[in-house]
Amino acid sequence: MSDIERISRAARPAGRAVAKAGHERRTAALRSIADAIERQKDDVLRANAEDVAAAECAGLSGAMLDRLRLDGKRIAGMASAVREVAALADPVGAVVKEWTRPNGLRIGKRRIPLGVIAIIYESRPNVTTDAAALCLRAGNAVILRGGSESFRSNQALGRCIAEGLRSAGLPPEAVQLVPTTDRQAMAELLQRDEDIDLVIPRGGEALIRFVAEHSRIPVLKHYTGNCHVFVERSADFAMALDICENAKAQRPGVCNAAETLLVDAPIAARFLPELAARLTARKVELRGDARAREIVPSMKPATDADFATEFLDLICAVGVVDGVDGAVRHIERWSSSHTEAIVTRDQAAADRFVNEIDSSTVLVNASTRFADGGELGLGAEIGISTTRLHAYGPMGAEELTTTKFVVLGDGQIRT
Amino acid sequence: MSDIERISRAARPAGRAVAKAGHERRTAALRSIADAIERQKDDVLRANAEDVAAAECAGLSGAMLDRLRLDGKRIAGMASAVREVAALADPVGAVVKEWTRPNGLRIGKRRIPLGVIAIIYESRPNVTTDAAALCLRAGNAVILRGGSESFRSNQALGRCIAEGLRSAGLPPEAVQLVPTTDRQAMAELLQRDEDIDLVIPRGGEALIRFVAEHSRIPVLKHYTGNCHVFVERSADFAMALDICENAKAQRPGVCNAAETLLVDAPIAARFLPELAARLTARKVELRGDARAREIVPSMKPATDADFATEFLDLICAVGVVDGVDGAVRHIERWSSSHTEAIVTRDQAAADRFVNEIDSSTVLVNASTRFADGGELGLGAEIGISTTRLHAYGPMGAEELTTTKFVVLGDGQIRT
Repeated sequence: MSDIERISRAARPAGRAVAKAGHERRTAALRSIADAIERQKDDVLRANAEDVAAAECAGLSGAMLDRLRLDGKRIAGMASAVREVAALADPVGAVVKEWTRPNGLRIGKRRIPLGVIAIIYESRPNVTTDAAALCLRAGNAVILRGGSESFRSNQALGRCIAEGLRSAGLPPEAVQLVPTTDRQAMAELLQRDEDIDLVIPRGGEALIRFVAEHSRIPVLKHYTGNCHVFVERSADFAMALDICENAKAQRPGVCNAAETLLVDAPIAARFLPELAARLTARKVELRGDARAREIVPSMKPATDADFATEFLDLICAVGVVDGVDGAVRHIERWSSSHTEAIVTRDQAAADRFVNEIDSSTVLVNASTRFADGGELGLGAEIGISTTRLHAYGPMGAEELTTTKFVVLGDGQIRT
Repeated sequence: MSDIERISRAARPAGRAVAKAGHERRTAALRSIADAIERQKDDVLRANAEDVAAAECAGLSGAMLDRLRLDGKRIAGMASAVREVAALADPVGAVVKEWTRPNGLRIGKRRIPLGVIAIIYESRPNVTTDAAALCLRAGNAVILRGGSESFRSNQALGRCIAEGLRSAGLPPEAVQLVPTTDRQAMAELLQRDEDIDLVIPRGGEALIRFVAEHSRIPVLKHYTGNCHVFVERSADFAMALDICENAKAQRPGVCNAAETLLVDAPIAARFLPELAARLTARKVELRGDARAREIVPSMKPATDADFATEFLDLICAVGVVDGVDGAVRHIERWSSSHTEAIVTRDQAAADRFVNEIDSSTVLVNASTRFADGGELGLGAEIGISTTRLHAYGPMGAEELTTTKFVVLGDGQIRT
């Protein structure tokens, strides 16, 4: 039996044990894991130092090294993130819907864990504990496969998690790490659709494509966030400028930053110069379509490629469109279905935008930067799904559950 | 551009049009489709006669021929099934959850269509209209790939559907049939994860495995229904006998029929002889484990293979187990996670069984035969998912939707 077969088979019974353990024991396990992370801090730091040294030799870039590197403060942050998940409401067991049939059968849809989740991610050790905690909160077992540069760090963190599970009387197999960095092993894991219910890849597009191509298990993908803000003709200019600036420039390198700003034609001549001034002051490079450049000729011309791009940088595409219809058409063509916002004082325009845009988060009069599990109040986030499946958009603990039908009768048979 | 590429690309815009059309226009389209089926009945019958003649030449078996063959009554049934779906509540737009954040943002999770669904099924023409109707009800576009023996019938039904869509002002691309029976084309379809959101295969295990192996798109599988009834020690014997008989013998060839009956040890000596008499009278062959055969020696011995089998026949495995724990252990080992029932008068035993069994439908004091979309009150059923995903168990229109986040602000930006 291969390592992958062994850990895959061990996951389902462990997941069942976590599911049956109930809210309080899951909470206890999460707290014990946080304690173990703090207690074994030196081991984790030692393992991480080895990872960092090896990555430096291998010539890893500065940003990636920064994500890999742990210190006392970061470890304290990881422990406290696990404690926050321990404090979250438990989604398991909630009855989401109930009804009674004419024959007296009482039907309920009750929330249950998904079962076994595999998370495949890059070399960020904090994902190991964040993902484990959220999966456990929702009663699941999880198989973790982190990036190869963080292998030693993850193994050390895995020992903390196992200790926490054991001390709460839960099987350590509820959180397992793939014990190799071999890509072939990952491909083997992705074939085990009878043992694993869902795969969530977290990382760059190449990783997500590899997973989607090789997986026989349903995959929740988080592709790019090519997010839009549409400033409708009735918008309050001050509000629109604040929202555009915040969406584009507050933190340009993240997926919920705006990449394209669309301005309604009747206000373009007045609004665009103000927008250009605000964004230029924040060192944002503007690339406009022909209609925008007629008004602000200093903008570079925007190509189709610009409208298709998630810049993740201080670059912004700008377009002039005709009303909600024009905005919806542009967004349907170019958006990655992540997040779009409208700024408007017209309720009918807001309603139409909200109804017609089928992206996972649609905002009215608020910055795209709120498309985030924490900001939406999910408590914690395992990722943002751009796959249209049971979870679409930011995913918290509830999005790691499904439902079963519970049917209560008094002897009904079918005739 | 291949046929598959063409229809895949056409599906998403058509799905958006169906989503935006709103409840009443979708209802109108469904009614027009039903009308068109009735109006074009002769064309459908002619195409079906050709299919049946070809299938007879090819030596298709009696049961399969029966599923393929249409007549006036069956066509009327198909039209009336579409009208029933037209009368169903529309799941799209419902707000499933709402809350407000400390910064005043109002968050709602609103139900939206999944988008584009592919249904792959065997040579049963009624699935063409049933599946199209339910997908449209939930605001989706659908790509249908029926069995090759029903190709001409499906094409004729596809023309009815297109006519109905057109007359309601919806694009005919909302329901498209794969225009070839080539398996390679199906494999190509299953690679189009950017155009298609979900694949539902309906048919035998070989078909489902082919789809799961070749699909890059999430697949909702309906594997076997190896269903159990557990008669707990406190059960009312008369009720338990009725339920066991109904679950096993009322219609043994369907997925929610029981395959194994488990009897609690303390009542086995009294209950098993009565059970054996009841089932033998219904011509059910009993295969017992060692403990059952001590009590009813006339049973054949049951092997592990018997406990693993979905007989779909008048054959029943029988086991004696120790309490809820023993029943749960047996079910976890052998069940296909479809449907399980307990017969009991002990509330604590019922609660434990319901909590611990993670099958998609769990019943208390009712026959497993109720695990069915119609019987549970979903209105119509597109299939029964044994995949633990957004839908688990019988799937109606609501299970063909997902949710998006709608965020209403008054100028909030992130700091």
